[in-house]
Amino acid sequence: MTIDRRTMLSVTAAATMLPSAALGAKGTEMYGMLGRMKAVPGKRDELLALLLESSAGMPGCLSYIVAKDATDSDAIWITEAWDSKEHHDASLKLPQVQAAIAKARPLIAGFDSRAETEPVGGIGLKS
Amino acid sequence: MTIDRRTMLSVTAAATMLPSAALGAKGTEMYGMLGRMKAVPGKRDELLALLLESSAGMPGCLSYIVAKDATDSDAIWITEAWDSKEHHDASLKLPQVQAAIAKARPLIAGFDSRAETEPVGGIGLKS
Repeated sequence: MTIDRRTMLSVTAAATMLPSAALGAKGTEMYGMLGRMKAVPGKRDELLALLLESSAGMPGCLSYIVAKDATDSDAIWITEAWDSKEHHDASLKLPQVQAAIAKARPLIAGFDSRAETEPVGGIGLKS
Repeated sequence: MTIDRRTMLSVTAAATMLPSAALGAKGTEMYGMLGRMKAVPGKRDELLALLLESSAGMPGCLSYIVAKDATDSDAIWITEAWDSKEHHDASLKLPQVQAAIAKARPLIAGFDSRAETEPVGGIGLKS
């Protein structure tokens, strides 16, 4: 995934010039994503472990849940909620996420059912 | 949605005979569901409010997030994680959920993209 120059500038500006609350308080402009990832056959558990390991300590992440598909033994669902799209995009540059992407690539067969969302509220959004 | 007799019996048994920890501790046998709901045109906000209102205080609910689809102005994504399928099934009998289902029915045009999952872990699972 590429991040264009304007997005990078806005992330930089937000991180250096604004109080963190201005990045998008919970309930105002959240950003969400969900999708299904297919593991290479037999590699789902290994891929799940990598996803869990890399998801700790991501700034602005309100929810990041990985789940096994109940009917497809190779499929994983990832559902995410962030306090802003900027924080989501910036997470892709975090060292642990970059390392996980490199390790995960050979374990991934493909993606499907991807959707972008604007979370509105509910139970389990980290404050 | 109907609940068959065997499921009802297992819920009743769990609720009356077992310590609540035996219902499925977080991390052992979680249950998840996600899906897209289409609102009757113009009714998405009203439907979102009903979903949020009814989701408070559901025993065993670890995550229940409602979100607007970013590209379809009538669509809502609901993603759920529960400490057990029994708690999910039992939630459908809660008075506030029954009341919300009755109020929501005329606002719902349909469902699509439904999947059942087994959540494994991540950020934002209520403890």
